[in-house]
Formats: sequence, C-alpha cells, structure tokens
Amino acid sequence: MTVGRNMQDQGGRGETSRLEAFSDGVFAIALTILVLDLRLPPVENVTPSGLISAVLDLWPSYFAFALSFATILIMWINHHARMGLIQRIDGLLMFANGLVLFMVVTLSFPTAIVGEYLTGPAAKGAVFTYAVFVLATSGAWNVFMVAMKPERGLLRPTVPASAIATTRRRVAFGFTVYLVAAGLSLVNAYLGLGLITAMWGFWGVVAYRALNEHRAWSTEATEA
Amino acid sequence: MTVGRNMQDQGGRGETSRLEAFSDGVFAIALTILVLDLRLPPVENVTPSGLISAVLDLWPSYFAFALSFATILIMWINHHARMGLIQRIDGLLMFANGLVLFMVVTLSFPTAIVGEYLTGPAAKGAVFTYAVFVLATSGAWNVFMVAMKPERGLLRPTVPASAIATTRRRVAFGFTVYLVAAGLSLVNAYLGLGLITAMWGFWGVVAYRALNEHRAWSTEATEA
Amino acid sequence: MTVGRNMQDQGGRGETSRLEAFSDGVFAIALTILVLDLRLPPVENVTPSGLISAVLDLWPSYFAFALSFATILIMWINHHARMGLIQRIDGLLMFANGLVLFMVVTLSFPTAIVGEYLTGPAAKGAVFTYAVFVLATSGAWNVFMVAMKPERGLLRPTVPASAIATTRRRVAFGFTVYLVAAGLSLVNAYLGLGLITAMWGFWGVVAYRALNEHRAWSTEATEA
Amino acid sequence: MTVGRNMQDQGGRGETSRLEAFSDGVFAIALTILVLDLRLPPVENVTPSGLISAVLDLWPSYFAFALSFATILIMWINHHARMGLIQRIDGLLMFANGLVLFMVVTLSFPTAIVGEYLTGPAAKGAVFTYAVFVLATSGAWNVFMVAMKPERGLLRPTVPASAIATTRRRVAFGFTVYLVAAGLSLVNAYLGLGLITAMWGFWGVVAYRALNEHRAWSTEATEA
Repeated sequence: MTVGRNMQDQGGRGETSRLEAFSDGVFAIALTILVLDLRLPPVENVTPSGLISAVLDLWPSYFAFALSFATILIMWINHHARMGLIQRIDGLLMFANGLVLFMVVTLSFPTAIVGEYLTGPAAKGAVFTYAVFVLATSGAWNVFMVAMKPERGLLRPTVPASAIATTRRRVAFGFTVYLVAAGLSLVNAYLGLGLITAMWGFWGVVAYRALNEHRAWSTEATEA
Repeated sequence: MTVGRNMQDQGGRGETSRLEAFSDGVFAIALTILVLDLRLPPVENVTPSGLISAVLDLWPSYFAFALSFATILIMWINHHARMGLIQRIDGLLMFANGLVLFMVVTLSFPTAIVGEYLTGPAAKGAVFTYAVFVLATSGAWNVFMVAMKPERGLLRPTVPASAIATTRRRVAFGFTVYLVAAGLSLVNAYLGLGLITAMWGFWGVVAYRALNEHRAWSTEATEA
Repeated sequence: MTVGRNMQDQGGRGETSRLEAFSDGVFAIALTILVLDLRLPPVENVTPSGLISAVLDLWPSYFAFALSFATILIMWINHHARMGLIQRIDGLLMFANGLVLFMVVTLSFPTAIVGEYLTGPAAKGAVFTYAVFVLATSGAWNVFMVAMKPERGLLRPTVPASAIATTRRRVAFGFTVYLVAAGLSLVNAYLGLGLITAMWGFWGVVAYRALNEHRAWSTEATEA
Repeated sequence: MTVGRNMQDQGGRGETSRLEAFSDGVFAIALTILVLDLRLPPVENVTPSGLISAVLDLWPSYFAFALSFATILIMWINHHARMGLIQRIDGLLMFANGLVLFMVVTLSFPTAIVGEYLTGPAAKGAVFTYAVFVLATSGAWNVFMVAMKPERGLLRPTVPASAIATTRRRVAFGFTVYLVAAGLSLVNAYLGLGLITAMWGFWGVVAYRALNEHRAWSTEATEA
C-alpha cells in the first residue's frame, strides 16, 4: 500500500514536472525575446561618436529591458519554489498557471512602450501602462496562490500551512504596491517606475529565501 | 521475457517522450512569439492620455493574442493527454504530429491579421482567414486521431477503445464547427469569431477531463 | 570493472544527451521562428475579398515556409537517429554539430528571400540563394558524417560499420543533388526549387527508416 | 548517514540541473534569434544577379551573426563545464548566472549594429559598442568565477582548487583583452574586431579542454 501511495505520488510529480518544464520554457523564451525591442533606429552617414551617442540615447530601452528581464527571472525562481511545494495539479491551478504564463509573455509589450516613451511628453502614460500590466500579472499570481490554499489538497504533506499563508500575504501586498505604483505614475513617471523597480528588489530577496526554505522541506520530505 | 518486453516498452516510451519534449518546445515557443505582433505603431508628440488611448485602441490585437494563446495552451494540454495514451510511434503518427506542429506554429499569422483588420472594413475577410487556419489545424488533429486508431497498435494496452472513439468524435465535431464558423464569418465577423471563441471553452473542458482520465489509465497501467 | 565501464558509458551518454537536448532546442526554435516572416504587408481601406486575395497572393511565402519547416523537422529526426548511434563526443563532432546548428538557424534567411522574390523578375537569384544555403547545410552534414566515421571510435559498439557507410553515401549524394539544384535554379527557378523539394521527400523516407533501424540497434545494445 | 549525505547531494544536483536546463534554454534561444537580424532590405524590380549581389553585400551581417553565434555556443559549452563542477547553488551564484544570461541575451543588439555599420563611416563606433558589450559579458563571467571560489563551498569535493584558479585567471585575462579590443576599435575597426574574433578561437580551445577535464573529474567523483 505504501508502494501504491508512492506510485500515485510519482504519477502526480510526473504531471507537475511536465507542467514545470513547459512553464520554464515559456519563461526562458519570454525573457530572451525582450531583446528584440532593443534595436537602433537606422541612422544615415553617422560618425563613430554619433553612433555611440545614438546607442547611449537608447538608455530608457536598456532600463526597461533590464527591469523586465529581472522581473521574469525572479518570477521564474518564485514559480519554481512554489511548484516545488505542490504534489498534484488540478483544473484551477492549471488555469492559474496559464494566466501567469500569459502575463509573463505579455510583459514585452509594455516594456517596449516604456523604452520608447519614457523620455518624451507621454512618459506618465507609458509608465502607467507598464504598471497596469504588472498589476494584472500580480493578479494572476494572487489567483495562483488561491489555487495553492492548503485546504485544496494539492500541497505536499510536509509543507507547513504557515508558509503558504506568508507567501499569500506577500503576493497580496505586491498587488497593493502595484496599484499605488499605477496611481503614482500618473503624478510622476519616475516615481511610479522607481516603486516598481524597488519591488523587484523585494521579490529577489523573497525568491532567494523561498528557494532555501523549499530545499529544506524537500529534504524533510525525502527523509520522512 | 517480461524484462525483454519491458525493455522494448521503455525503448518505445523513450522515443515517445523525446517527440513529446520536442513538441512541447514548439508549443511553448509558438505561444510566446505571439506577443511579437502586439506592438504600438509609433506616435509622435503624444500626451499621456493620448498614449493610453492608443494602447486601448489595440484591443482587437489583445483579443486575437489572448484567443490564440489560449488555443495553443489548450492544444498543448490535449496533445499531452493524447501522447500519454501512446506506447510507440510510427511514420503516420510522426507525420500527423509534424502537421499539427506546423499548424500550431502558423497560427501567429492569422492572429496578426485579425488584430490588424477586425475593426476595419475587411473584418469579415480577416475572421474568415483565421477560421480557415483553425479549420486546417482541426484537419491536422483529425489525421492525428486516425493515426491513433486502436487497430493501428500504437496505444498502451490499458487504454479503452471507447475513449479513443470519443476523442475522435469530438475532433470530427470540432472540424464541422470550424467549417460553420468560416461560413458564418463571411456573414458577420463577430459571429464567426464568437463561435471559434466558444469552441475553445469546449476544448478547455475536454483538456481538463482528458488529463484526469489519462492519469487514471496511467495508474492502472503501473498497477497492472 | 564492468561497472566501471558502464559508468563511463553513462557519463558519455550524459554528455551526449545534454548536447542532444540543446540541439533539439535549437531545432525547435529555428523551425518556429520561420513563421515570423509570414506577415501581410499593411493594406489600407481593403474590402473582405481584397484582404482574402492579399492573403492568397502570399503563396510563395507559404510554400517557402512549409519547405523550410519540413526541412528542419526532417533534419531533426535524422539528427536524433544519428546521435542515437553515438556513445561519446569529441571536439570534431562538437564542431560539426555546431556547424549543422548554425546552418539550421540560418535557413530562415534564404526562406524569407524565396518568399519575397519567387514570383518577381529575380526569382532565379532567390532560388539560387536558397540552394546555396541548402548546399552549405549539406556540407555541414558531410563534416558531421566524417566525425562519425567508425574508425574515430565514437560509435556504440553494436552499430554496424555498413550502416554508417550507407548514411555517408546518402549525405554525399545529397550534396551533389543540391549542387545540381543550385545550377538548375539559374536556368529555371521552379526546376531548381522542385529538385530541392523532391530531395526532402527522399530525406523524409530516410528519416523514417533511420529511426526504425536505430530502434533495432538500441534493443540489441540493451540486450547484449 | 552516507545515504542522508547522498540525498542532500542529489537535492543539490536537482537544483543545479534545473538551473542548467533553464540556462541551456536561454542560450539556445539567444543563439537562434540572432538570425532575425539577417534580413534583406526590400529591393524593387531587381534582376537575378542584382539580388545575388544584394545578398553578398550583406557580408558584415553574416560575419557579425557567425561571430555572435560562435561566441554564444562556446559560452554555452564553458557554462556547462563550469556548472558541472558545482554541487549546490547559493544566492551569489544565482545572481552571477542571471547576469551572464542577461549579457548572453543582450548580445544580439550590438551584433545587429556591427552588421549594419561595419562598412560605413561609423565602423569604429559600431565595433567599439560591440567590444563594450563583450567586455560587460566578460565582467559577468568574472563575477561568476568569484561565486565559484573554492572557499565558498559550492564545488564538488573532487574538483582541485588549482583548476578553478586556472579558469579564473583565464576569465580575468579575457577581460583585459576585451578592454584592449575596445580601445583598439577606436583606432581601427577591423583590428578591434579581429582581436575579439581571435579570442573566441582561444575560448573554443578552452571549452574543449574544460569539457574533457570535467568528464575526468565526474568519473573520479562517481568512482570515489
């Protein structure tokens, strides 16, 4: 019977790791194609120093590219940590994961807009657009956390309910911050963008800790 | 001799999972590059609110992007469920799988057309084009189901013939619906697009059920 | 000692499958991004039937896309079959594999040219360009086959030398055919393109047979 | 207790191979999308020979494409060899790896610039830009090597400290060479580009040796 149980678990893990591999692929591609918007507009009869300053003038595009790259990389780490707590998948989690992937893929669109309009008169509109997409991404993560609720029975038995509660609070907190960032961006584009940038510093720390905590639980799980 | 049988099976599964991994990669990339057609046409001296309304005006592109994203994601889930029933691959299945991947990859082309022309005078032509590509995709899936016929001997022994028959009927039904959608789109673009959109709600439910059924058979298979 | 030998073999297989996974990724991406050149040039105030005929007028692009898609898909199958015969990797094989991947990735460039110029006055130049790239790809495969020579000691012990000799002859034959196709395309674009298209029918058959032969050897290998 | 130790090791290896698979994906995509900048500008009413010379005139783009393709392929091999020495991941290594991936992805941007401007009056500016990006990539690798320092405890116990020291010296040497190349490119574009090209010949040799050395250590590790 223990063997039966193990088999079922393996079956469950098989589905989970398949979904993880697919999601990893989408994260990796979404992150890489961001660079396709980093292109110099054609310049005629330019001098070497003229070309170098044209390259430097693209700094808003570099910044937006770096911000979105870091955002997707950190979301990937957090996705992994969260998937590591899951034992089996159901319809709601599948849907929530699809929603997260959809937003991850979509991020290249507002990134291109910030790169193009950050230094022009429409800067506030550009950052507002970016903030709204980040807010929707955060919304998708909130649905994901609902799908992971301990009472829904998808978690590995060694995962403490308190850990999920902490992550849910953080994800809900993130949603509030991005809401503020969207409002703030209509007042001052740089303030709004600064708040979003500060947030991924926070998520970077969460990502690192979550990985460590997850490893601890996995060890427990295999030792138990 | 049992070991010999198992080895052969493993060999077969090795080929199958290799094809699955490759197909997964194509699905993931096809789904991600859809976003590359979501780009704002350059606007000069625009105000923040002008930029935001330019972003909102792109809604047909968002809709077409979301529709094709969901379509490919659901086809991926169904592809997985169907591949999970297969024990070994032959030439016809390889060919049918290649045809399905070809249509999956191609979907970004009519998606861009719907995004561009849905609100203009050529809307009917745009949705008709989209419907024809979806119809061809459905055709590829019908060939795939022929290759999976129980009498062709590729299925795992635990898979009931009735399950395949049900899936074949659904896939044939889908073809008819897309044929109607193509005709309907020449009368009214929104009706045609609405029918296609409704169909992926149906496939989403099929995908979820198929996954569950497949898991049950796998368990049987490992228990037998 | 047998165990030591097996470990070494596994180590070798580990490197091989890592290279295979990476190569698979490149094949999958190269094949998918072909669709990015399938885009309708913007048309203003077009009618539904005008849009549909604009879509139909793109047929050279569809043909070139389908040809290159099939080419890469079949090369992927053949790549797999050939890698399956290999036990360990050395520098020359690594280099030859890199060269093959380079040509696979590059194929989207002449594909776009054929799509654009096949029906215009420069058709012969477009098909000639395509043929030269296919010829270079065939050259890379010839280097790959040199790296796989039995006397170089990379093959699995169960692989008969005759099988390698057959594949080498076919790959060398392909090079000659593409050379003829390049010359022919300067006389008549459609004849040149027809010969290249006919060749991938040949490779499709080779791919299917190679897969079957490989499976047979694997079984031998595990049984031995 | 040995079993416990082994489990922990496996857990560590699990994280490592997950990071490796993700990184492999990014390398493969970054390398493939380089081809998207290899496009012929539209030409009207061109003759076959006119089209062929337009294709030949793109040689700076081919050269830049081939250089960056080889650069990323060789970095992938070196990345693999270095990851093979690692037993577990910590925050600094994760960050350093993210930085390396960021620079790998970014490389397509200066590649497009060299392709566009190498034969024009701004050639020095184009190669200088390329050299600066390669220099930053080298900087990321230097951080990576700091994260791999033996005293940080991430290495497999069988890896000799001298091997890491050698790699660190080479990576630091590379940084100096790219610094010289950046300076040189402001004097003569072709000299700067020639030095960068020569360097990847060096890295190619390192990559090949590193793979061999790594295989030796792995064997030791499994034999110990």
